[in-house]
Amino acid sequence: MRKKQGLLMILDGLGDRPNLELNGMTPLEIAKTPNLDFLASQGMCGNVYPIAPGLRVGTDVGHLHIFGCDSNKVYSGRGPIEAYSAGIELMPGDVAFRGNFGTIDENYTVIDRRAGRIREGTKELAAAINGLILSDGTQVIVKELTEHRVAIVLRGNNLSDKISCTDPGTAVEGEKLVIPSPLDDTSSAAKTAKNLWEFTMRSYEILKEHPINKQRLSKELYVANAVITRGAGQKKYMPSIKELYNIKAACVAGDITVGGIAQLVGIDYFSNESFTGSFDTNLIGKADMAINLINEKSYNWVVMHIKATDLAGHDNLPIAKKDMIEKVDSIIGYILKKIDLNKCYIAVTADHSTPCEVRDHTGDGVPTIIAGGDVRKDSVNSAGESQFMSGSLNNLTANDIFMLQMDLLGFTEKVGS
Amino acid sequence: MRKKQGLLMILDGLGDRPNLELNGMTPLEIAKTPNLDFLASQGMCGNVYPIAPGLRVGTDVGHLHIFGCDSNKVYSGRGPIEAYSAGIELMPGDVAFRGNFGTIDENYTVIDRRAGRIREGTKELAAAINGLILSDGTQVIVKELTEHRVAIVLRGNNLSDKISCTDPGTAVEGEKLVIPSPLDDTSSAAKTAKNLWEFTMRSYEILKEHPINKQRLSKELYVANAVITRGAGQKKYMPSIKELYNIKAACVAGDITVGGIAQLVGIDYFSNESFTGSFDTNLIGKADMAINLINEKSYNWVVMHIKATDLAGHDNLPIAKKDMIEKVDSIIGYILKKIDLNKCYIAVTADHSTPCEVRDHTGDGVPTIIAGGDVRKDSVNSAGESQFMSGSLNNLTANDIFMLQMDLLGFTEKVGS
Repeated sequence: MRKKQGLLMILDGLGDRPNLELNGMTPLEIAKTPNLDFLASQGMCGNVYPIAPGLRVGTDVGHLHIFGCDSNKVYSGRGPIEAYSAGIELMPGDVAFRGNFGTIDENYTVIDRRAGRIREGTKELAAAINGLILSDGTQVIVKELTEHRVAIVLRGNNLSDKISCTDPGTAVEGEKLVIPSPLDDTSSAAKTAKNLWEFTMRSYEILKEHPINKQRLSKELYVANAVITRGAGQKKYMPSIKELYNIKAACVAGDITVGGIAQLVGIDYFSNESFTGSFDTNLIGKADMAINLINEKSYNWVVMHIKATDLAGHDNLPIAKKDMIEKVDSIIGYILKKIDLNKCYIAVTADHSTPCEVRDHTGDGVPTIIAGGDVRKDSVNSAGESQFMSGSLNNLTANDIFMLQMDLLGFTEKVGS
Repeated sequence: MRKKQGLLMILDGLGDRPNLELNGMTPLEIAKTPNLDFLASQGMCGNVYPIAPGLRVGTDVGHLHIFGCDSNKVYSGRGPIEAYSAGIELMPGDVAFRGNFGTIDENYTVIDRRAGRIREGTKELAAAINGLILSDGTQVIVKELTEHRVAIVLRGNNLSDKISCTDPGTAVEGEKLVIPSPLDDTSSAAKTAKNLWEFTMRSYEILKEHPINKQRLSKELYVANAVITRGAGQKKYMPSIKELYNIKAACVAGDITVGGIAQLVGIDYFSNESFTGSFDTNLIGKADMAINLINEKSYNWVVMHIKATDLAGHDNLPIAKKDMIEKVDSIIGYILKKIDLNKCYIAVTADHSTPCEVRDHTGDGVPTIIAGGDVRKDSVNSAGESQFMSGSLNNLTANDIFMLQMDLLGFTEKVGS
């Protein structure tokens, strides 16, 4: 089958709703986007559901579906994804958790669940509790992530992810850490619950005495004396995108969660310190890297991820979201000068909608374009949630968009003959 | 429930993509099609996925879905379909293969996998090896199909389709025939693999001495001294369309694979020597036969299949594809004069897209119309992939279109009361 290349741009949380601050338009509708409009005119458009209408997803699940996976089959808690984000290669039987450095008192009551959003010294703190051997021989791997976030992995015999974790909940401070308990009758769940609590207590003893925390105390900052865990999961067998489609794929992203998910599904992850995952990210640098991967490194499919649109949604900053969309649009103009649309399709989508007024992910469809070369053209000529409602991709799902791209690129198998 | 009649025209491989040779239009878009445009204006239109967006299907699977089946449930290799194409009624336990007459040397190396695309004498060659009784008592049924193709059935006790076949692959000549081996641990798979190899060797001994091959040798043509097998399958239980919908259905086609699939699902198959499955097929003859089945023979649903649009796609002949579409359009005009749209709906669809520039089946949606009588009308007034993108059937599936037809015809059961 004839092969072509493809570039997929993911604008995290791009989808929005009519906003009063923007005269009842969405950030994408009001933004001046000559290049997105051009792409819309050169292909198929629509608002696409991450999984199904009205179903809200996180960044992790949204990206799994963009990458062609069914999260119901491959998703088992956020833990394994955080582990991959931290560069920990999971082994069969490992149980992984997402964690926060937090502040607790001597009764294990949570004073601050993010240790005052600690940013400095987490590498040293994680190192101080990394490699602990628990009383039954289980090993604990701990690796810092961005800010207060940390990945934790229990590695040993007969472990299970069917346990409750120590996090008392995201809403309130002042609750005690939860003593983990098994969620089924297996000995492995009982053993793992016991292990997680032993780790929690022992890491508290180590962390509270750590020089970095003594320093923080002297500066009247919250100490990072606890690791608060949630999202227990084991890696399920997930055939890589190479195994499934024999495709060489790359992901350019600053956000390490997205990078972790990409690696989990067999997509090579490329980043750079200037890719911040925020408004100040180096967009030109990302574009150059993506262009290089396509034109020089012969990747079949390159995914370029931009995070800040989602941040603007969470912080209810519709103007900032519009501005970021316009910045991305001008980068698309830059890319269009360096890439031949007859050889390389360009698609644009999002992992979910983050409407500014909602300040959270919603189950709305996400604006999506597939353009270039011999893609059929529908009647949509400009980018926007309203315009895309009459597009030919409207109401399809993220998995559908993945398959349409694989088919255009020539990497699908024929069923039957 | 009120009953009506329906005619479904299948233009094999009709769907296409914007083509440079056609000013960026598709063959259907650029073709002058007053009658298809009329049908479009009298009903509902859309690009319909054979199974799901981006999923490529073969002719066999595509037709199964047009006929309302789920190929995941009923498809077990191409073998059984070829057997039905050849007029062999499969019994429970039979293992069927699709085969080629090919040319091998005395070391079983494949010299030509189609015996020089042999067309003459295959009936005699198949007869010479038909009815062989193997050493364990298994019987072999062999029946010629079009050109070099042949259907093979093993009939006996304790047989299995879980074996590898003798075909070394479609891409290259110069490889040896594969000695069949069982794909699971059952005695039936081991026995069937042994049987297939015994048949292969014994048929070689018979075929190489056959007068037709002596003649071919004297004319310096490739001899048809081997039967190369693939697509082992057993018939799965498939309730017929009569059992499921109590509908009397007919299929008019020159292509015997389509005829085989029709019979497999319980649709009566009608053909004629002048229906060639190619550009020179007798379209008027097909139309007259379909009209007769509707007006005189009281069939509830008549399917009329035209193959040449697919051939033009595979051979990258956009003009020929356009011309064939125009020929079919004039035949639709002829049919419209003889059939009352108020008594008989007319639908048009395809089994898959075969874009000329791709030269293979793709996962694009296929142009589809359901028109006539009391069918609701959308705003589409002319036939074409672009126009259909805003049609009311857009993004539905072949199974959906089947059910909509059954419902219009009055053959569906009410769920609930």
